[in-house]
Amino acid sequence: MPHVLDNLRVVLVATRNPLNLGAAARAMSNFGFAHLRVVNPYELAFREARSAVGASEILASAKEYESVADAVADCALVVGTTAVRHRELLHPVRRLEIGARFMRKELTSARVALLFGSERVGLSNRELSHCHWLIRIPTAEQNISMNLGQAVAVCLYELARARHKTDEPDKLRRATSAELERLTQMLLDALILSGYVSPTAAAPGEERLRRMVRRLGLLPADAETLLGMMRQIVWKLRADGALE
Amino acid sequence: MPHVLDNLRVVLVATRNPLNLGAAARAMSNFGFAHLRVVNPYELAFREARSAVGASEILASAKEYESVADAVADCALVVGTTAVRHRELLHPVRRLEIGARFMRKELTSARVALLFGSERVGLSNRELSHCHWLIRIPTAEQNISMNLGQAVAVCLYELARARHKTDEPDKLRRATSAELERLTQMLLDALILSGYVSPTAAAPGEERLRRMVRRLGLLPADAETLLGMMRQIVWKLRADGALE
Repeated sequence: MPHVLDNLRVVLVATRNPLNLGAAARAMSNFGFAHLRVVNPYELAFREARSAVGASEILASAKEYESVADAVADCALVVGTTAVRHRELLHPVRRLEIGARFMRKELTSARVALLFGSERVGLSNRELSHCHWLIRIPTAEQNISMNLGQAVAVCLYELARARHKTDEPDKLRRATSAELERLTQMLLDALILSGYVSPTAAAPGEERLRRMVRRLGLLPADAETLLGMMRQIVWKLRADGALE
Repeated sequence: MPHVLDNLRVVLVATRNPLNLGAAARAMSNFGFAHLRVVNPYELAFREARSAVGASEILASAKEYESVADAVADCALVVGTTAVRHRELLHPVRRLEIGARFMRKELTSARVALLFGSERVGLSNRELSHCHWLIRIPTAEQNISMNLGQAVAVCLYELARARHKTDEPDKLRRATSAELERLTQMLLDALILSGYVSPTAAAPGEERLRRMVRRLGLLPADAETLLGMMRQIVWKLRADGALE
């Protein structure tokens, strides 16, 4: 089912090392994935990787974005990668094998983004807030930090591994990131208007909210319904506020 | 079972690139393997890899051999790696996942060697002749040639993977029905107060709402957070309404 692999978007965020960009593209080619997206790569690294001898078609056709939000806007499921176990507090974290199973199911019907952070710091909390959940590669406690190119290879191997198995298609398409972001912003408006979130401290609240909205696994119709509800509530809060 | 992983000998034959030696050692460390053996490495590459910043203990304690025969002499099972399918004629070739299962069984009682050939030509037929059988990583037909460091990472991931139960249940507990019902009622209040739902037609709206809230698959903490948000919004709508 090549069309299934075709639904994956590998998203490299703020990658510094051209060798890692090349290695990621090579692993994608090895395991049958074609669509690479880069967010704010170090310009020089990106140009160097693209012009390297043997640079792949995948690198040549890689798309560049200025934010994670833009890079995942058309994806119904956004999965981040992390080595750090204490981030489990903010996001659900699944072991690669389990997470890959969920991703494969989603890939049968929708676009899925798999995010990898920079070599130094991984994905920031702000970047992670665009993710529905995270996967971690089960590593030895003594050394949990993998090389970026190797981490990409292992994740794509696991995603491609069970192609032969007949995965039940998940008939329930999920809302896209763009739809979820509209809901997040409308909910944030309601929370600010109601005094739940103070406008000055909105940024951290916004990230928490974004993460939570991603965890809901909303169907498109439900996302739309909730958006309509929140729009009405916001309208009412504004109308009442204007009376004061 | 750390002693099991301890029985593996990763054997790199005629490796040319110091970065690949370092990458192999790093993957070993990531997945809990300690014993690296090198056969006829390019001298300069080996010295460079060993003296690299952050070079691991694994590289420092790597043992050097002049022939594959010497490097695998104490191993009860010797497994080669190959990308090339027509070598299947000379040796049995197993898909990584299957081969790893056999290897793990053997590792419980004996030393097992896993061989990787040089970047240019892989393992020669002479080197392969020391192997009991071969494994290949299932790659896309269009590009079967993997980067050495990535191939090592994928193989070791697969070997270490099944230490965990493969059908481990998804551990994320969901909110209870009682928690969901409190949220449903609070949301309904907000919808009535904002005029989204008319009080007289609340019953069918309530059922739709209840079904939707159940579809969210909420974690307990998220259910509580959402309840707190809706409570504040309801309070504000009531307070504003009282002003009219």
